[in-house]
Amino acid sequence: MPTSDTLVHRSTEYAERYPSGRALPPKLKVAIVACMDARLDPFGLFGLEVGDAHVIRNAGGVVTEDALRSLAISQHLLGTTEIVLVHHTDCGMLTFTDDAFRATLAKSAGQRPTWSPESFGDLDTDIRQSVARIRSNPFLIHRDAVRGFVFDVHSGELREVS
Amino acid sequence: MPTSDTLVHRSTEYAERYPSGRALPPKLKVAIVACMDARLDPFGLFGLEVGDAHVIRNAGGVVTEDALRSLAISQHLLGTTEIVLVHHTDCGMLTFTDDAFRATLAKSAGQRPTWSPESFGDLDTDIRQSVARIRSNPFLIHRDAVRGFVFDVHSGELREVS
Repeated sequence: MPTSDTLVHRSTEYAERYPSGRALPPKLKVAIVACMDARLDPFGLFGLEVGDAHVIRNAGGVVTEDALRSLAISQHLLGTTEIVLVHHTDCGMLTFTDDAFRATLAKSAGQRPTWSPESFGDLDTDIRQSVARIRSNPFLIHRDAVRGFVFDVHSGELREVS
Repeated sequence: MPTSDTLVHRSTEYAERYPSGRALPPKLKVAIVACMDARLDPFGLFGLEVGDAHVIRNAGGVVTEDALRSLAISQHLLGTTEIVLVHHTDCGMLTFTDDAFRATLAKSAGQRPTWSPESFGDLDTDIRQSVARIRSNPFLIHRDAVRGFVFDVHSGELREVS
């Protein structure tokens, strides 16, 4: 049985306890940008309830152009005013270089991607770069209330970087 | 007190019950692409445990270039083989047009963005487009096992589209 069948089956139980009636704009007025890593559960980590916060996730939790698109929509149209960034230890993005991954893709696809894989060699440095990308982005309204953290996937603890 | 202080405070309690020792590659070999909407909790909806699945999220749950970057890393480096897409009812992306949002940003920032806001007028149509973007992307290895759903934010139910 494909995994997706298992997930769909579980979703039928979820509907029974789902808290409906929450508003579209996030109640806590916060947007979280986090890595896609399977060991990172933003709802659990931050004690979120349904309706509390926007959660944006990608490989690395990097503030990419698409993350900035999402944040612009979050702030301009849905009223969020704070941003929380979460990278984590043992991240896959630390295990390769952009050049090496482009070579892997070139071999597999017969062409190199036009986009950057966005790998990084140091968590704290990338968090600081992500904060800098937010502070300098003209399409965001609230650029000061941004904090960057590293989540430890072994201890479950959060460490503030910037 | 800023919201981020509340979230950081809650995270200290999370560490006590965090299940450490889970591997970097997602146990269920699945990557989920979902909207950032605050009423969508992929862990709750799909009964995920820490370590089970990659979760990629952005405004709309659209398969953008950055989502494809994340999926390429997920499949090539971390072994996922299935993709589950989740849009949802009452989505903010249905409430504006790209042209209108570009005009809003131009007024606020003094310049228009070079990126597409990726708004859409119909959930099912956008799910089908997102599936098509995956099936035609040369940088993914597993392009057949992809399913698209719409989550009902009022009932908590999931409906398969494609």
